[in-house]
Amino acid sequence: MYPLSVEQPYPREQWWVAAYSSEVGRELLARDILGEPVILYRTEAGKAVALAGICPHRAFPLSKGCLAGDAVQCAYHGFRFGADGECQHVPSQTSVPQNARLRAYPLIEQAGLIWLWTGTPDRADPSLVPDLHALGLGRDDWAVEQHPLATVAARYTLLIENLLDLSHVTFIHHRTIPAGEKVAGIPTQIIETETSLTVQRRGENLPLNPLLAIQFPGRTGPFHQHFDAEYFAPCLIRTGGAMYDAATGQLLGVQNYLHLLTPAAPSRLHYFVNTARSFGVDRPELGDMQVAMGARIQPEDIEAIEAIEQVLQSGASLPREISARVDTGALKVRHRLEMQIRAESQGRAG
Amino acid sequence: MYPLSVEQPYPREQWWVAAYSSEVGRELLARDILGEPVILYRTEAGKAVALAGICPHRAFPLSKGCLAGDAVQCAYHGFRFGADGECQHVPSQTSVPQNARLRAYPLIEQAGLIWLWTGTPDRADPSLVPDLHALGLGRDDWAVEQHPLATVAARYTLLIENLLDLSHVTFIHHRTIPAGEKVAGIPTQIIETETSLTVQRRGENLPLNPLLAIQFPGRTGPFHQHFDAEYFAPCLIRTGGAMYDAATGQLLGVQNYLHLLTPAAPSRLHYFVNTARSFGVDRPELGDMQVAMGARIQPEDIEAIEAIEQVLQSGASLPREISARVDTGALKVRHRLEMQIRAESQGRAG
Amino acid sequence: MYPLSVEQPYPREQWWVAAYSSEVGRELLARDILGEPVILYRTEAGKAVALAGICPHRAFPLSKGCLAGDAVQCAYHGFRFGADGECQHVPSQTSVPQNARLRAYPLIEQAGLIWLWTGTPDRADPSLVPDLHALGLGRDDWAVEQHPLATVAARYTLLIENLLDLSHVTFIHHRTIPAGEKVAGIPTQIIETETSLTVQRRGENLPLNPLLAIQFPGRTGPFHQHFDAEYFAPCLIRTGGAMYDAATGQLLGVQNYLHLLTPAAPSRLHYFVNTARSFGVDRPELGDMQVAMGARIQPEDIEAIEAIEQVLQSGASLPREISARVDTGALKVRHRLEMQIRAESQGRAG
Repeated sequence: MYPLSVEQPYPREQWWVAAYSSEVGRELLARDILGEPVILYRTEAGKAVALAGICPHRAFPLSKGCLAGDAVQCAYHGFRFGADGECQHVPSQTSVPQNARLRAYPLIEQAGLIWLWTGTPDRADPSLVPDLHALGLGRDDWAVEQHPLATVAARYTLLIENLLDLSHVTFIHHRTIPAGEKVAGIPTQIIETETSLTVQRRGENLPLNPLLAIQFPGRTGPFHQHFDAEYFAPCLIRTGGAMYDAATGQLLGVQNYLHLLTPAAPSRLHYFVNTARSFGVDRPELGDMQVAMGARIQPEDIEAIEAIEQVLQSGASLPREISARVDTGALKVRHRLEMQIRAESQGRAG
Repeated sequence: MYPLSVEQPYPREQWWVAAYSSEVGRELLARDILGEPVILYRTEAGKAVALAGICPHRAFPLSKGCLAGDAVQCAYHGFRFGADGECQHVPSQTSVPQNARLRAYPLIEQAGLIWLWTGTPDRADPSLVPDLHALGLGRDDWAVEQHPLATVAARYTLLIENLLDLSHVTFIHHRTIPAGEKVAGIPTQIIETETSLTVQRRGENLPLNPLLAIQFPGRTGPFHQHFDAEYFAPCLIRTGGAMYDAATGQLLGVQNYLHLLTPAAPSRLHYFVNTARSFGVDRPELGDMQVAMGARIQPEDIEAIEAIEQVLQSGASLPREISARVDTGALKVRHRLEMQIRAESQGRAG
Repeated sequence: MYPLSVEQPYPREQWWVAAYSSEVGRELLARDILGEPVILYRTEAGKAVALAGICPHRAFPLSKGCLAGDAVQCAYHGFRFGADGECQHVPSQTSVPQNARLRAYPLIEQAGLIWLWTGTPDRADPSLVPDLHALGLGRDDWAVEQHPLATVAARYTLLIENLLDLSHVTFIHHRTIPAGEKVAGIPTQIIETETSLTVQRRGENLPLNPLLAIQFPGRTGPFHQHFDAEYFAPCLIRTGGAMYDAATGQLLGVQNYLHLLTPAAPSRLHYFVNTARSFGVDRPELGDMQVAMGARIQPEDIEAIEAIEQVLQSGASLPREISARVDTGALKVRHRLEMQIRAESQGRAG
């Protein structure tokens, strides 16, 4: 499926963010994940639960049902399933049909995020959840903002490609990202590690701009600023990075933009943005500013990738793709993702 | 096609209700039946007519045309077809092209209902129309109400399954059907005859409720009440049934709910509800109450089956189906319907 | 694809009208042509240009971009393409990727119309553009009106069939075309030449009507009037024709209706109507009247063919087609078009 050269649209042996912790409570939350309806809720003890969203009795959507203690009750014929997915009760009889259960998704709650494993349950290794702590989430010495969830009418790979080629900042965000007009002109460097691939841009001797002026009061610049795009897995990309006083080389702080993306369906995605900074942790106005900026910047990206999705859906024949050198990182990521999907297909076949 | 294990969505060698008598007059009525556009009207003598709705000249929808005496005139080039479907007139010439005709559907008008045969015309046996008289329609000693037609965005089989498993009453109609909250708990019994299959529930020693109080003034109960679901054919299911004075065993009356259903398309159905009662025939307020109750109950069923239809259309993979003992009747009906469709396919192949 | 007996919906080795000259300027105009997005604009020198509308870098719709001199700049990553389609600039590097170009469509601007060749560029023979001069366009001794473009939710062949069988005028335009009610009754004659096929109707001794009274003041009739339908190519059909004084045989003038049609997609078409007359050239009120009449007549045709398109899309099975003698011309045109498409397929195969 474009832009990948594999048929299968997404890997399944993977953790994905299903929801913010704050979204999940004692009401059933319906969310499509990788083309399947999922329901999320908390037990009376507060533990988050993710179950398949279709009743195996007569295919009724369970999100229209209700909670009975820790169990979910289908609104149609009253079948009841526990937090482990097992059928507990059928109203018209005293026993329960054999093999009556809902798929229960392995789930990890961490740093205000609910991660869900969409693959084979026994492969749901918690150590495969990206190391959020290292990026600034879930720790006292950084400040974090959760931006509102956006559900986007585009395949998730278009957002990955968008983020891995930040030269687009110069064109679609030049009015909303300070110094954005310079990004396309900064040379890139690719750093590959076992756990990530970074397309790094080091902006050097950048003049003061309104954002830096608020972030680092009293500093007049010039600044060195990193515009990174770091791919960890299809569920997580980090942009942003470190900022320095150009004169002294002093690290002023790190501003990370964490893009958490989850396929809702082959051509729809959930987009959770978290911002995290290592400086001005006690200045909430800096966080409010990030959220306000996000509310202007994200719609620009969303509009762009939805426009491409519409082209792809239109049935028009696509021209033969050309790439620039600046796309090397994005193409390597595309390859990583294809390899991940292929490995799964072969795993299932073998 | 789910929930059936056969490809073909519906049987065609079958009578279906196409319209209420009151809907059909000297204007062309357009109605989709089994995926085909049909036009209905009355001749000047008042005879109801059903013809194919596409002009064989250039595929124009005939429902946009008009009547010229007993003939239908296409609005595009003026081709005219008689009530028997034969082409009568082509404006630009004096003769008529060979084999120029519309399909004319065998039709029976009975008890305020227009029945249409969608199969091979020479198999259109009037005796195959369900015996409505026995159920209370078209006779002076019962009172009947025709509820407004609802066209529902769901396959007709979902409504059949809904009606055959009345345990749903306890969950989706508990606010709208008096004593409904008890239905799922009443044991079921299956009665199979040559012409029908009934899932019977005999509610015993039920206390007085507001509906019974109005239906049988002066009675204080307790009552025995039947909650039947009787399948005759895919076009007709009866629910409701007899009510008794529990103390004396005296039959107080029968209240039938006649569900007349017709596939409009593979995933759309027309739903005609008629209520018929053997008591209080001279009390029109009882009929008004049935119609008012129907206006609250039917949307609950429609919402439920449309929700399932949306699940089916979403492309989500369905869980392996589980059934309870209470589903035995519905599963037998599913089997009957599959056999009916298979027999047709083999008939055509043979 | 119905009504043609060939798979391929349209010929590609063909000139089509893409736009009115007045629509194309220094803003990018997006238009779908034969299922492909195209962008149209003018160079600084005023030359009209038509390029493929999808950026070959990452499939972004170029219509959202902007002009930089004579070049188009993609709004996503700033790739820039010249008026010849060649990539001129990639922001993040000094060179340009090999083979980076947009398809540039051969284009001819003539009589206020922009014609575009959708086939192999080296076959784009300007002499294949229909001879508009002979029909009254682009000359001082005739008056011409360009009616507003309509984009119609129907396959272009339905409009060809509509125009070739003017017996429909009697039925769908009897209120909007003076003398229209007579058309179906006039005998037809087919005139085939190397370049066109005409279904000719010669209305004889027609009485004065309000339109003729305005067109030819002082004349009281009767009149002879031609109701032609002349097919040149799938892009152009002429209706209307000459009008005479019946008493003297004097030619009063010619009123042509030029129907320029372009497939937007398999089931969508662009409809450009131009009217041209050889008389009253200095009476602009006659042109205003034609435009006002068109605003009433065209919606009638559009509604008719969109209704057929809906039948075709509905999945209903079509009846076996019947035709009248009056359809001979339309059937011959259908055959011509099938031959044209088949010749192309064989050309590509050979």
